[in-house]
This record gives sequence, structure tokens and C-alpha cells, in this order.
Amino acid sequence: MTNYILKDENAVYYECGFSCDNEIFMQFGSDRFFITDGRYSIEAKEKLRGIKIVESRDVIKKAAELLTEHKIKKLHYDPNDFTVAEFEKLKASKYTYFEPAPAFSQKKRIIKSNREIKLIKEAVRLGAEAFDQFAGHLRRYGLNQNEKRLVYECAAKMQNYGDFALSFEPIVAINENAAKPHALPTDTEVKIGSLILVDAGLKYERYCSDRTRVAEYSNSLTFDKKKQRFLSSKRQKVYDTVRKAQEKAIKAAKPGVKACDIDRAAREVIEKAGYGKYFVHSTGHGVGLDIHELPVISAKSETIIEENMIFTVEPGIYLPGEFGVRIEDMVRMAPTRAVVL
Amino acid sequence: MTNYILKDENAVYYECGFSCDNEIFMQFGSDRFFITDGRYSIEAKEKLRGIKIVESRDVIKKAAELLTEHKIKKLHYDPNDFTVAEFEKLKASKYTYFEPAPAFSQKKRIIKSNREIKLIKEAVRLGAEAFDQFAGHLRRYGLNQNEKRLVYECAAKMQNYGDFALSFEPIVAINENAAKPHALPTDTEVKIGSLILVDAGLKYERYCSDRTRVAEYSNSLTFDKKKQRFLSSKRQKVYDTVRKAQEKAIKAAKPGVKACDIDRAAREVIEKAGYGKYFVHSTGHGVGLDIHELPVISAKSETIIEENMIFTVEPGIYLPGEFGVRIEDMVRMAPTRAVVL
Repeated sequence: MTNYILKDENAVYYECGFSCDNEIFMQFGSDRFFITDGRYSIEAKEKLRGIKIVESRDVIKKAAELLTEHKIKKLHYDPNDFTVAEFEKLKASKYTYFEPAPAFSQKKRIIKSNREIKLIKEAVRLGAEAFDQFAGHLRRYGLNQNEKRLVYECAAKMQNYGDFALSFEPIVAINENAAKPHALPTDTEVKIGSLILVDAGLKYERYCSDRTRVAEYSNSLTFDKKKQRFLSSKRQKVYDTVRKAQEKAIKAAKPGVKACDIDRAAREVIEKAGYGKYFVHSTGHGVGLDIHELPVISAKSETIIEENMIFTVEPGIYLPGEFGVRIEDMVRMAPTRAVVL
Repeated sequence: MTNYILKDENAVYYECGFSCDNEIFMQFGSDRFFITDGRYSIEAKEKLRGIKIVESRDVIKKAAELLTEHKIKKLHYDPNDFTVAEFEKLKASKYTYFEPAPAFSQKKRIIKSNREIKLIKEAVRLGAEAFDQFAGHLRRYGLNQNEKRLVYECAAKMQNYGDFALSFEPIVAINENAAKPHALPTDTEVKIGSLILVDAGLKYERYCSDRTRVAEYSNSLTFDKKKQRFLSSKRQKVYDTVRKAQEKAIKAAKPGVKACDIDRAAREVIEKAGYGKYFVHSTGHGVGLDIHELPVISAKSETIIEENMIFTVEPGIYLPGEFGVRIEDMVRMAPTRAVVL
């Protein structure tokens, strides 16, 4: 059995169903340890069974001591999970060889369980509802509101007055700001006919949702991706191209194909329409406890797609100084096809 | 001149007045480099003068290449600023010895400039206004609202509908939940006479504010720390003790004293009142671009206090299963005394 150490909050939560903001989880054979400080140790003892709770002000120093005490010879760790300073402290353990295991937890989490699928579906359903709520806000109050205000309002809808956490800080980008895939909110205001890109999600029982929609502003604005009509033929062409690229990518997703084949399906549509160089990112990413998980759906990803992987399909076209369009949904890999959540 | 590398967003912002969420800053002698990806390089070029902007999809690999190209022999880095995986990549540079420099940037930032003091003062002023707004919300609508909802409402007041970012996720804790210094919000509801602890702050032009108040719920609730009256004599005694501890600590702060002397001043008051073992954290921390900066105001901190350091003074008493009280303000070290911001 592999001995391993985890520090990342979601990685630890996945192992034992509890985590806080200062902890180490270790497993040696059948022994499992949860090290945390006095702020959280009582709650950890209440919630965890079959795991030794160890209290310490310095959880990494304590981990090194436990490794020495148990004479552990080999331990897997994720080099992305520890800073150089933390790892130096950990290496004080006397007998341990530390075996680098990049993405150790994320690899374990790539196939979702039935329970996880249920939670993610609920996150997506609630996220879609929040998009509808936000569309309602835009129709009634959005005119002349700026991006900063709209990010705030969008986050409010996602959180539903405190019921849910955000998956990430929402993006609300108008016209040329939508041409930046990671736009920071500005004072740019919504006008009739503004193109608005919204990328947002929420967490339900710690599992993330993620969705992007684009719409042109009017008092009948909706985020239904099938109902978008644009005044300019260029916007309409770009939008329709992105939508077709998303459809093709979703159709290309089958158990057994490589992730890069899904990316290629989207990229081909966009290239054929003459916008190849304006699709500047990869087609998708896994979603679960982290907003970005495995598999990576990119031109270089050799990952074989399997049943019950959950990932985004989100092609985009970004025309600098003009506007950008991205359409993003999450899909679950079913036995024969990708099901949009 | 020291050669150094920085990755932390606030550390980089401090050097050059711009940062994004994927960047490396390096200085060799008089050469300065800002490495970022295509999403941010245009903005970086617009905003930065006298700094070479280098675009790369892999900013750390590119940093290693530049180190090799410039035959850099020695480079200071903060081992808290890089993961093991990142540092491995950086070490691909051929000629460089990496000198660990823990808290490299935070040490540079410990004394605040006049400009920084102005911005922090404004952050504190706006934060105090938001506390008043939140008190208004509580008086009008707070009865029977739960902690989760109140965290949301408190965050809304701090953000002022999108004008400001949060310094951190606010804490709103009722009765026994206030006995946990880092309480996570629950479904516990506010009732008449509930003790409510609120710890919150906002960022103004990237500089943080931080404040904690405790009040007993009524329809005349205020967060004025001088006006708190409690129904039970135990609550009143604990509150008055914490307030006196804060006053003594603020009086003890003078240029030339050690940080631990400030901590001791607070701790003595609480120990004398018989609550010594319920003051489970240190007395304060520096605040600036990061919410937690130097100096550390703790029992062990030998840091000599100097003019224009800015830090919190926040003693607390936490009675498990009952309630907790913490009172927190930010102070600036003036030539002869600490001035509450």
C-alpha cells in the first residue's frame, strides 16, 4: 500500500470528508493521521472515525516527527502541494525518502462516484438558476450598471444570500473586455446592444459548477444559449461558430477517445470559419472539488476519456479591441456519449 | 545590489505597481523583468516603464532561461513563495545559486510610506463605515437571520455593491460560535440578547483594513466599542477585560520597544482577570497589501517596533461552549505613540 501525505484542503476532504484551513493528512499502511491546530481539533475529533487526530501548532513539523517515530521509509507527496520552505521542514524526518507524485490526489479524483455526480449535478442546476436570476437583474436594473457592480450582483445571485460559496470570482465583461479571457472588472457600463460575457459558478456541498454565456443587452435578455440573436452579422457569425464548435466537441467526446480529439473537434470548426488564431485557450478542464481538475481537454492532452469523468467544454473566439465569445457547459461522460449537465 | 525573484502577487505589485495572477518579477542589478502570459502582457506593457516585459506560457521556465542567458550566479528567493515543483523548474538555470530569503518582500514592506499610510487610512475609514452599515442591517433585519446569511450581508456592506474587494471572508459568529477564533458560519440564528462577533475588512486600492467588534443583539445595536453593555455580568467582565487589554497594549506600543512587550501588556491584563489560558492567539499582526504582514505581535516576537509600522491590536478571550470576545483595531506607530486608525 502506498504511503502518502496531503496538505491541499480539497485533497484532504476527499480522503476523509473533513478539512479546515490548516491540516496535514497522512496514511501509512492502515494508519491514518489528521494533524491540525487547536482551532479545529475538537471538530475533527467529532467528525472523523478511524483516523488519529493529532493537535499541533506546527502541523508540518509534527508530520516530520510522526514520520520519524513510525520509521517511515518512503512517502509519496505532490510537489505542487508544498512550498520549498514547508518541504524543508518535512525533510527533518530521519528515515524517509520522499517520492514526488505530481497531481496525486487529482488523479485519484478523475472518475467521479455516483454521490459526486449527484452533488455536481445539483451544483450545476443551482448555477443555471442563478444565471436566470442574474438575467432578471440585468433586464430590470442592468442598463448603465458597470462591470464592477455586475460582478457583485452576479456573485450575489450565485451565493443566494449566503447559501452557497462561489466556485470562483465571477467574470462579467462587456464588448472589448470580453475579448480578454480573464477580464478584470472595469467601470464600463452596459448599454442597449452591449455584448455581455458572464462566466460564473457556485459550490454545492463543496462541489463546483462552471458555466459561461454571452448575450446582447436588451430588456428581453436571456442566457439561453440557443436563443441568442445579435445585431451585427459579425457577432452572430462568431457566436454561431463557437456554438457549433461546442456541439462538435461534445459529440466527439466518447469513452476511449483522447482528450486532444475533443479539443481538435472544437478547434477545427473555429479554424474553418477563419478564427483559428483567436481561440487562445484549451477546450476544457475537469471540475469537482477544485474548479480546475483533470482531465485537461487541450490540443496536447493524451488522457483517455473514461465513463464518469466530468469536464467543461468551452471553446471561445476573442477578437482584441472588439469582443469575445465563449460558451461553456459541463458534461458527464456517459457510456456512449457526453451528457450536458 | 541584490538579485532577486518574486512570484507573489502583492510582492510584485509592491515592486512595480502592477501585477496579475500569473507572473514572475526578477531584478538583476539594474535590469528588471516582468514575465507573464498572453492574457496580461498587453496591459503590462501599457502600465510598466523601465521594466522588460517578457511573454511566455510557462513563466517559471522562462525565468530559468533568462537566468541562464544572463549568466546570473546568485539569486535571492523566498522559499515560501515557490512550490517544490516550481522551484525544480527554476533550478534548470545553469549558473545560479539560489539563496533562501524568507519573507524577502514582507521585510521590505514592514515600514509604510506616506502614500501607503494614506491608502490604509482610507481602507480603515471605509471599513468602519461598512461596520455601521452592517449594524443598520442587523437592527432592521438581523433578528432570526443565521450566520451564513449575515456573513453574506456583512460582505455586501464591505464591498459596497462592487466598489471594493474583501480583505478576507468576514466572520460573523453568535454566542458559543464566537468562542472559536476562526468560526465557520452555521445556521445559528440571531435572537434578542445574542452575542455577535464580527471580524471583517475591505481593500482600498489593494490595501487592507481589518477590524473586530462584539455586540449584544437588540434593536439599538451599535459596533461602537465604548458603548457595549451586556445583560450578564460575566459577558460584561470579559468584554471590559479585553477592552482594557487592548488599551494597555496600544499604550505599550512605542518606537524602540519589542513586539513581545506589546503582547505582554495585553496578556497581563487578561491573566490578572483570570482568563490567561483563554487568550489563545497572539496580540496582532502587520497589515498592508497582505492582510497578514510583519510585524508579528506575539509573545515570542523580538521585532523592534519602528515609526510607520501599521499593525492590529486584537486581544481576545474565548470561553469554549459559552462565548468569545475579541476587539481589534489597526494602529500606526507615530513618533511617540500608537495612533488608532
